[in-house]
Amino acid sequence: MNAPLYLDHAATTPPLPAAIEAFLKAQREAFANPSSLHQAGAEAARCLERARNELRTALGASRYRVIWTGTGTESNHLGILGLAPRLKSKVRREARRLGREQPRILVGNLEHPSAGMAAQSLQEEGFVVQTVAANREGRILPERLAESLAADVALVCIQWANNELGSLQPIPALVALTRKLAPKAAFHVDAVQAAGKLSQDVDALAADSVAVAAHKLGGVRGCAALLLHEEAPEPRPLFHGGGHEGGLRSGTENTAGAAAFAAAAVERRLRLAEDPERYHKRRQALLDGLTQAQVEAHPLGPADPEQFLPSILSVALPGMPAETLLHRLEAQGYWVGSGSACHAGGHKESAILTAIDCPRAWRNAVLRFSFDGSEDLAALGELGSVIAGIFAEQGGQTADSSSPSS
Amino acid sequence: MNAPLYLDHAATTPPLPAAIEAFLKAQREAFANPSSLHQAGAEAARCLERARNELRTALGASRYRVIWTGTGTESNHLGILGLAPRLKSKVRREARRLGREQPRILVGNLEHPSAGMAAQSLQEEGFVVQTVAANREGRILPERLAESLAADVALVCIQWANNELGSLQPIPALVALTRKLAPKAAFHVDAVQAAGKLSQDVDALAADSVAVAAHKLGGVRGCAALLLHEEAPEPRPLFHGGGHEGGLRSGTENTAGAAAFAAAAVERRLRLAEDPERYHKRRQALLDGLTQAQVEAHPLGPADPEQFLPSILSVALPGMPAETLLHRLEAQGYWVGSGSACHAGGHKESAILTAIDCPRAWRNAVLRFSFDGSEDLAALGELGSVIAGIFAEQGGQTADSSSPSS
Repeated sequence: MNAPLYLDHAATTPPLPAAIEAFLKAQREAFANPSSLHQAGAEAARCLERARNELRTALGASRYRVIWTGTGTESNHLGILGLAPRLKSKVRREARRLGREQPRILVGNLEHPSAGMAAQSLQEEGFVVQTVAANREGRILPERLAESLAADVALVCIQWANNELGSLQPIPALVALTRKLAPKAAFHVDAVQAAGKLSQDVDALAADSVAVAAHKLGGVRGCAALLLHEEAPEPRPLFHGGGHEGGLRSGTENTAGAAAFAAAAVERRLRLAEDPERYHKRRQALLDGLTQAQVEAHPLGPADPEQFLPSILSVALPGMPAETLLHRLEAQGYWVGSGSACHAGGHKESAILTAIDCPRAWRNAVLRFSFDGSEDLAALGELGSVIAGIFAEQGGQTADSSSPSS
Repeated sequence: MNAPLYLDHAATTPPLPAAIEAFLKAQREAFANPSSLHQAGAEAARCLERARNELRTALGASRYRVIWTGTGTESNHLGILGLAPRLKSKVRREARRLGREQPRILVGNLEHPSAGMAAQSLQEEGFVVQTVAANREGRILPERLAESLAADVALVCIQWANNELGSLQPIPALVALTRKLAPKAAFHVDAVQAAGKLSQDVDALAADSVAVAAHKLGGVRGCAALLLHEEAPEPRPLFHGGGHEGGLRSGTENTAGAAAFAAAAVERRLRLAEDPERYHKRRQALLDGLTQAQVEAHPLGPADPEQFLPSILSVALPGMPAETLLHRLEAQGYWVGSGSACHAGGHKESAILTAIDCPRAWRNAVLRFSFDGSEDLAALGELGSVIAGIFAEQGGQTADSSSPSS
């Protein structure tokens, strides 16, 4: 057997060679504490600022400050728990005028728990938290958000791309609507899955804060960032201490991690510029292979290529529990995902599939294929017949065996 | 000129070769998300658990769980802000019985801001925060803590070693006293400076939670840990989300960072076992050199070698502002520290020196030398005559020029 084909890049992607190189270079040449007064400290501080500028450029975030954090989860918390309290007194007056006791938070119903649960926890700080429902394609339509928007909203929190379905939210339209109907609200975007995989600039989102994480685009773990718009309110920091990152995130800065993150983002940008269709081609090759092998396959999420993140293909393959199929594929040399890998403690039925009202018979039969964008197209095309073979072994792809609980 | 001699290891220390090796190995062999269900995910999970066990063993923390975090600052926050609220209702009854409105938090007056400010922020959660003063050697004596301890105390927060002075606190005695006089209180220890540089086991501290950070002992930044005693209360997590680390720290685990942290701790333990006096010898060589060169030098902190962290020598060198001397030393090929490097934004007069009532004329003249423990002893011995030469150039070491503001 050849080396296994890893198709779980949405869970985490191996660091790019350029990122490892930047990491090791920074460890050699910029190992000191950026706050140290000697030349070694100054060099570390320069390295950190270079990485900050490179990341901004690579992500097209010229109107944003980069606040380094440790994880995407922390970035979502800094955006959500940092911004909402700053707007509380401002919107409380509006809430009273509208006859409401407490200011509101609006949060998409397909958020990653690191954003969704952070938003929900604002109830403890005196906010009413309301969810905004996505449609069956996993999209939050502007008219749906408009129904909930009013001047008493302190924060709107909606992801750019869904980590299980790949659905893209129309963030620029949602932000524009928020500015109009809830002019004092901040808008936080979880871009952990999307960043580095789309040609769109972060500037185009025009959100107040945007969470990104190194390890989802080829950096090393231990480094992430909150991109903060130049016109955004100043968030309340999560950590007190040495006052790093302009007081917004105390803790010795991870210089080498930042250098690796920036290098990975630069490399992703170059690769996308070379071939903007690189992810679409891989996703399509896999789908075509499934069709050719006559596998019953139901792609989830939007059908319009403008509306999904092409590095993710989430597909219901009825006929066998997803976990069984995942392990059979593993035995054949394919590592794939089942829903989200972001839940510690293994597989459970996906809240996302329930939220989009995915047919019951499919819910336990969804695999998530996710791409680096440089996979061999032929190898992806062959997956269809591999899956057909696995189903044939058990006597076919019958709906009965797909979901014992349905 | 030879390569500069880096003597600022307390600010941060370059990753040990063993740590970089473990990091790269984990990136190759355990790159996947530990929550992924395929073999690559399982291998990442195994790598993470191996690192956890290695770190526990290397730090002598057999009675502690390792909760991975991102920075020492985060670890202090998880210990302090995590534990105190869990004990609030328990000690509130005691507070009322003692005629007090609110439960109390006791915090040393020499804490790093990442611990001290976290403790102070508990005022917003309905606690009264009281400081416990160290003596002029930077030590908190048990009798001093005893004066403040009573059943209404929810948390005591005292560092193991001070980051500027190196003063060691008698943690086992302070913990024993707390158990007796404030039986419901949790005890949090910031061991970020001390861990890996002392032969004592963390088990011997018997504290509830102990903060440690990889980059202070030769790991890579982006990874730290809270060691949580098996009998400690369960902290309230700082982050919501995927439920990693038993629900205590959501966010994809930094497998490679953890592997590097563990490898560095193992290496530190081996080096200390080989030569338990390695830091003491280096500190003494530097002091002897200063004496031989007849430099007026006043070491700060305790004089008893059992009472200081030997990897740090904080010394007042009156006759020139510390920052000037630091840059002159840099020009001669020595990178040293001035007080703490943990404050972003450069040098300011140290709150620690004020707190221990350091003579005014010295406060602006303190350098911090800190060791890796493998420096050439002769090179350290020569520093005395280098410093004497720098003072001679300006016409001698006069008290006048040391501190223009005094």
